[in-house]
Amino acid sequence: MIVVLRLGHRPARDKRVTTHVGLVARAFGADGMLIADVRDEEVERSLRRVVRSWGGDFFVRSGVNWKEEIERWKGAGGKVVHLTMYGIPVSKVIGELRGENLMVVVGASKVPSEVFGISDYNVAIGNQPHSEVAALAVFLDRLFEGRELDLEFPGWKMKVAPSERGKLVIRRRMPQRPSASEQR
Amino acid sequence: MIVVLRLGHRPARDKRVTTHVGLVARAFGADGMLIADVRDEEVERSLRRVVRSWGGDFFVRSGVNWKEEIERWKGAGGKVVHLTMYGIPVSKVIGELRGENLMVVVGASKVPSEVFGISDYNVAIGNQPHSEVAALAVFLDRLFEGRELDLEFPGWKMKVAPSERGKLVIRRRMPQRPSASEQR
Repeated sequence: MIVVLRLGHRPARDKRVTTHVGLVARAFGADGMLIADVRDEEVERSLRRVVRSWGGDFFVRSGVNWKEEIERWKGAGGKVVHLTMYGIPVSKVIGELRGENLMVVVGASKVPSEVFGISDYNVAIGNQPHSEVAALAVFLDRLFEGRELDLEFPGWKMKVAPSERGKLVIRRRMPQRPSASEQR
Repeated sequence: MIVVLRLGHRPARDKRVTTHVGLVARAFGADGMLIADVRDEEVERSLRRVVRSWGGDFFVRSGVNWKEEIERWKGAGGKVVHLTMYGIPVSKVIGELRGENLMVVVGASKVPSEVFGISDYNVAIGNQPHSEVAALAVFLDRLFEGRELDLEFPGWKMKVAPSERGKLVIRRRMPQRPSASEQR
């Protein structure tokens, strides 16, 4: 189980970046995303819309208390990995993280200093300033050793057929539920 | 030489995502970024500020004509790689791209269909919807086989010392230019 915890989301500024974090979490094999402190139904809706079309059962929940979530996760035996440009190189720790239940914490600009202490690992995807979206993607790509790019998402209505030129999308009608008259 | 070409930037909506694209380009070893069609001095300024503090000579230029840039690049023998969820798997082509001069094209939501035809490669970082920021990061990480995370950025004023807890930043005063009196 891999859950992403997004800290510091400001609905006025961060909608698109937080949505990208959620899309990356889903596409790269995480099970869900929690957004700390604030509710943002717009971000939740746009992620759920993607899940409905493209499949899988990725979940999203906003407005959680980050400290409680981290403590609960650790209490249940999971590990907490905070992605930060100040941390130790991903290559040094990725081996011991495979197969664990991970909460992957990504911040917006400012992260409470407490997070550095409460996390089991502070991990850097390079020590240059860049993007939490990129950090999460590369972390999961390393964790799953590239296999996440071939994941199937059950229940898809749309699916890409890879092609050298142009866009090929396969669309599937959902199996019809029996109507009331048929059920009788 | 690796240059990122950002298409479809809308200054009102995309400032932060385009800035993330630029930061990722720099941090993951590209030489510069071109932003098509519109000038955005705010994005340029914030990227140059990062270069001044953290080093290297990453360049950014906005308001370019994308078609001219692509044609000039190809005319000079470079290859054009368009990152798109509709393309062929990155693992199939990454080997033949190493060592080439690459223009890496990333779009915002809508990309003109012409781009699929004019590019030498349409490459997918997975075929699920996610983020151009993530796609660029994983592409460059695969291209450079992870070595980009150890890049040095000459001329840095700030540099992170990786640490297990907290933030360690090394600051360096620039060598002083000789003053007018010393020069005499």
